[in-house]
Amino acid sequence: MMIGNEMHEFARELWPINRSLTGNGVRETLGRIRQYLPGLEVFEVPSGSKAFDWVVPKEWAVKSAWIKTPSGETICDFSKNNLHLVGYSIPFSGMLKLQELQNHLYSLPDMPTAIPYITSYYQERWGFCLSQYQRDQLKDGQYEVHIDSELFDGHLTYGEYLVKGRLDSEVFLSTYICHPSMANNELSGPVVTSYIAKFVSELLRPRYSYRFVFIPETIGSLTYLSRNLDHLRRNVVAGFNVSCVGDERAYSYLPSRAGTTISDRVAKHVLSHIAGNYEEYGWADRGSDERQYCAPGVDLPIATIMRSKYGRYPEYHTSLDDLETVVTPDGLLGGYKALKFAIECLEANVYPKATQLGEPQMGSRGLYPTLSTTGSSFEVRTLMDILTWSDGKHSVLDIAEKCEKPAWEIAPMVKMLVDHELLTLSDH
Amino acid sequence: MMIGNEMHEFARELWPINRSLTGNGVRETLGRIRQYLPGLEVFEVPSGSKAFDWVVPKEWAVKSAWIKTPSGETICDFSKNNLHLVGYSIPFSGMLKLQELQNHLYSLPDMPTAIPYITSYYQERWGFCLSQYQRDQLKDGQYEVHIDSELFDGHLTYGEYLVKGRLDSEVFLSTYICHPSMANNELSGPVVTSYIAKFVSELLRPRYSYRFVFIPETIGSLTYLSRNLDHLRRNVVAGFNVSCVGDERAYSYLPSRAGTTISDRVAKHVLSHIAGNYEEYGWADRGSDERQYCAPGVDLPIATIMRSKYGRYPEYHTSLDDLETVVTPDGLLGGYKALKFAIECLEANVYPKATQLGEPQMGSRGLYPTLSTTGSSFEVRTLMDILTWSDGKHSVLDIAEKCEKPAWEIAPMVKMLVDHELLTLSDH
Amino acid sequence: MMIGNEMHEFARELWPINRSLTGNGVRETLGRIRQYLPGLEVFEVPSGSKAFDWVVPKEWAVKSAWIKTPSGETICDFSKNNLHLVGYSIPFSGMLKLQELQNHLYSLPDMPTAIPYITSYYQERWGFCLSQYQRDQLKDGQYEVHIDSELFDGHLTYGEYLVKGRLDSEVFLSTYICHPSMANNELSGPVVTSYIAKFVSELLRPRYSYRFVFIPETIGSLTYLSRNLDHLRRNVVAGFNVSCVGDERAYSYLPSRAGTTISDRVAKHVLSHIAGNYEEYGWADRGSDERQYCAPGVDLPIATIMRSKYGRYPEYHTSLDDLETVVTPDGLLGGYKALKFAIECLEANVYPKATQLGEPQMGSRGLYPTLSTTGSSFEVRTLMDILTWSDGKHSVLDIAEKCEKPAWEIAPMVKMLVDHELLTLSDH
Repeated sequence: MMIGNEMHEFARELWPINRSLTGNGVRETLGRIRQYLPGLEVFEVPSGSKAFDWVVPKEWAVKSAWIKTPSGETICDFSKNNLHLVGYSIPFSGMLKLQELQNHLYSLPDMPTAIPYITSYYQERWGFCLSQYQRDQLKDGQYEVHIDSELFDGHLTYGEYLVKGRLDSEVFLSTYICHPSMANNELSGPVVTSYIAKFVSELLRPRYSYRFVFIPETIGSLTYLSRNLDHLRRNVVAGFNVSCVGDERAYSYLPSRAGTTISDRVAKHVLSHIAGNYEEYGWADRGSDERQYCAPGVDLPIATIMRSKYGRYPEYHTSLDDLETVVTPDGLLGGYKALKFAIECLEANVYPKATQLGEPQMGSRGLYPTLSTTGSSFEVRTLMDILTWSDGKHSVLDIAEKCEKPAWEIAPMVKMLVDHELLTLSDH
Repeated sequence: MMIGNEMHEFARELWPINRSLTGNGVRETLGRIRQYLPGLEVFEVPSGSKAFDWVVPKEWAVKSAWIKTPSGETICDFSKNNLHLVGYSIPFSGMLKLQELQNHLYSLPDMPTAIPYITSYYQERWGFCLSQYQRDQLKDGQYEVHIDSELFDGHLTYGEYLVKGRLDSEVFLSTYICHPSMANNELSGPVVTSYIAKFVSELLRPRYSYRFVFIPETIGSLTYLSRNLDHLRRNVVAGFNVSCVGDERAYSYLPSRAGTTISDRVAKHVLSHIAGNYEEYGWADRGSDERQYCAPGVDLPIATIMRSKYGRYPEYHTSLDDLETVVTPDGLLGGYKALKFAIECLEANVYPKATQLGEPQMGSRGLYPTLSTTGSSFEVRTLMDILTWSDGKHSVLDIAEKCEKPAWEIAPMVKMLVDHELLTLSDH
Repeated sequence: MMIGNEMHEFARELWPINRSLTGNGVRETLGRIRQYLPGLEVFEVPSGSKAFDWVVPKEWAVKSAWIKTPSGETICDFSKNNLHLVGYSIPFSGMLKLQELQNHLYSLPDMPTAIPYITSYYQERWGFCLSQYQRDQLKDGQYEVHIDSELFDGHLTYGEYLVKGRLDSEVFLSTYICHPSMANNELSGPVVTSYIAKFVSELLRPRYSYRFVFIPETIGSLTYLSRNLDHLRRNVVAGFNVSCVGDERAYSYLPSRAGTTISDRVAKHVLSHIAGNYEEYGWADRGSDERQYCAPGVDLPIATIMRSKYGRYPEYHTSLDDLETVVTPDGLLGGYKALKFAIECLEANVYPKATQLGEPQMGSRGLYPTLSTTGSSFEVRTLMDILTWSDGKHSVLDIAEKCEKPAWEIAPMVKMLVDHELLTLSDH
């Protein structure tokens, strides 16, 4: 639980920052992640840069934004909750009748206490989000609207963190830092990814290299891909998109487009062992950066492990997706563990080969009871199962599946058999 | 319904003609089909010609045939119903006692009002078919039997109709014109095939070439194959045997021998979308010309789409298989539509490839809402699904199956994306 | 039943012999098998010989062994039941208090009337086995223990029997002759294998060569493999480990390690036709010499057909596994038949190819009714099914599975079609 509490604390620290596709909120968020990952590199890509079919948008800055009611009350105050302002709202000041103002207000009739999360990145608009409950109480009259925002040629900012392993082959993890004050989608992603990156950085001589990126969703992954596609296609052998890893209500898996990569197998292996009844989604249910990483012509082996999936929990994309009732220390810990086990599976997934023809004489090595009785072979069954599948064609993950045990329990037994010179290992 | 009624009318026109393996009934049937398909070529193959392991039989002609009862009543009159005479009956005239006559009579004890359909193509015999009800009323005495038929060295007649497309690759449709006055098996086949051929002939620049043959069953397909095997094996990429496509009670699919050809996939795709609960038969249930088209060494990709399958509806091969209670305009229309959709699937089944890396910017093309809300992506989901599978390896049929939608609904969306220069297409 | 009774009689003859890994009991058993198989070759491998990771153990001989109770009663008398002495017990003579003796006694609290079967091949020990019931009645006092046994550099003995066929490719059957007086595991194996070898030796010009080995379990198969691995890997195309084939309660199948060899297919084919509800085990349930034959680097295509599997019937490895209540003539006959059918499947499993394009004219060959009626094709359906799958790519076993009939019923029909020159056959 300690790590769960630490992560929850870190999420609270990041909570009030106004993250969006671009801007100082992103920079500040990356700055705080760098406290955990000193090697984190930050990149700035100018507005107007091409990213495949897309263009990096203007940078957005907000000083203040609010509405004053006819009775003089200030509502929808951006300084109180950054969800009140439609993302990428243009500057505006003026007096409007309630009827005119209504065209710029967004609320959710079915969730009367929730402030919705709305953005308009690619068409210039302004607007405010508020609860339906509050909206229903607005009275006719003149409203003063104030939005001191700016859209200007600036930069898109993202972070990248690399841990070098024994192999050039890379495991790639991506999470996004563009969502303002919401917890599962998406403070959980950057928070858990920071801790996973820290865990990996502390591994003793990992087999794979690990690359972590902290980017704005969609335009960020497209920008990153457009600058690194050749390298990624050449080196990435597995990876995960990290999103919605913070609540306690479910575990979920969403496949890569191919559906059959090692990342898919590992994700399903981990979830089947830590949460037998996890939700298995299809590619048709995609909705995060896997859309770009697995796009035709990109085709990276990226699968997604989640707790409750975006779009499938009631508080999604509203102010109710918070750190009190939705995202918990236990929820974050579960997300962390699932990704940690996935990485352990990948690290362990070498190909053992038996050194002896036929079954080895386990007894002479002290690995087998010397007295045969009806039940005596039971205890060493798993060792024998590992040996029988160690034909150089089955990986540790294959063998773990044959044994119906988690790869992270098989791995130490493989190591013991290597120590007894009954197995040799190869990366492939 | 208009086409359904037209086809039903055409079936009525063909009904009284005495079709068999050979003879003028076949020629007259083909003549009437030629009214719809002016380019229909008619071929005559001499009796005695070899067709693989078989020999083209003698031509059969019937002037008249009847039995006169002891009381002077004329029964089993061929001019009233051509089913009364066993197909390929040799000539005979004489007086027989009822007991002797019984050896030449065929009826169905379980279906007392039905005249069965009986043939004896490859052994010389004569016989009459009648209802069990009528047979039970025959009284002892002398019966005059009269069969003015002829078996002579003539020809086997068949028709062939070709529509040239952009590709030399051919879609092959075959139906048979050897069954006398029965409706589902088999006026429905030649009638629907005539209308499908007309539909194809009116397509604007079809992708595939289409070849239609109207032949007698078994000896006709063997004869046709023995004369055209090399061409067919080289060019035919898909095809259907058309039989029993006229009643309303079921849709049925019978596979090719391989079971995995594009014709099989298309047949199942079409039927699953127009009739979720269609009957799926196996190759063990075969019984029509697919036996020849899919024979070892022939191996054409021919599947069968039917309404109620031959042998699986109570009126099969009897006088009860009629145009009143069994085959209806609606039944024929369903058979027509299924084959039309199958052809549309084949025509549409190109391989799209996305022109952009990553998802394209749909918003800038007016294809996507510019305001993100929780439900906004719903309307364009299918467009995005088409794009994500357009990797040049998935055909339109593959993509339609991924989207769980009919290919004929996906095809126009593919066209729209091509018009927006987001996809290119290739035949493979 | 006659063969069942003969086999049961032979099992009775072998029953009292003291079989173990080595020794005169093995030699005598092989000598009696040689009465049925005069060509049986017997091999002697010296103690201390290497067998992969193992070493051939010392030879074990027992003259007498018993315990005398304080009241002078002789119990655990080896001459009455060789299960009383722990296998490979070292010599010992002396007086022990009951408490000391208890450390050398083995019984089964859950099966109070059964003498357990215990061995200690690879650690020097002595011990006695007795029923829990008898053990409970032992009274305090001095016990005289007498074991006149010897462990000495001798030989491991095994038998090999070869039937040459038309092909060099071999079918390999192995059974073990190291178990003392128990019936299903394991007098049934050598008894049924002897009769199967006799059956094969009487085949008229078999297609495959057949190799039978009678060996002690584990060390025997390892020794045999280490001396013959290259030949076996080059020639063995199928085979079965024969164990537990004598009771009437079940049929069981245990796969090869690969699970997809022809032996696996044949085993499942046979059992599905003779015992629809047979038990299907997995490789995880292995426990006999298939562990060696299918080990990585050995990889012979060896599957196992059993009646009640070792370890899965209550009398397993106890004195209750007897020839009265467990193994019966009917039980042995069932094991024999299953293996006989398996061999018939392998012999029959050639690749037929149709000589004619299209369906042949069966009528002209007297193979088809000449009068077509609604039901007429029923009788020849299987012949037509055989012909339609005879494309040179489907074997007789494939075809039998398509027809849902046993291969041994399809084989004579294939022969008939060959006689009519409608099929040709090839070994592959």
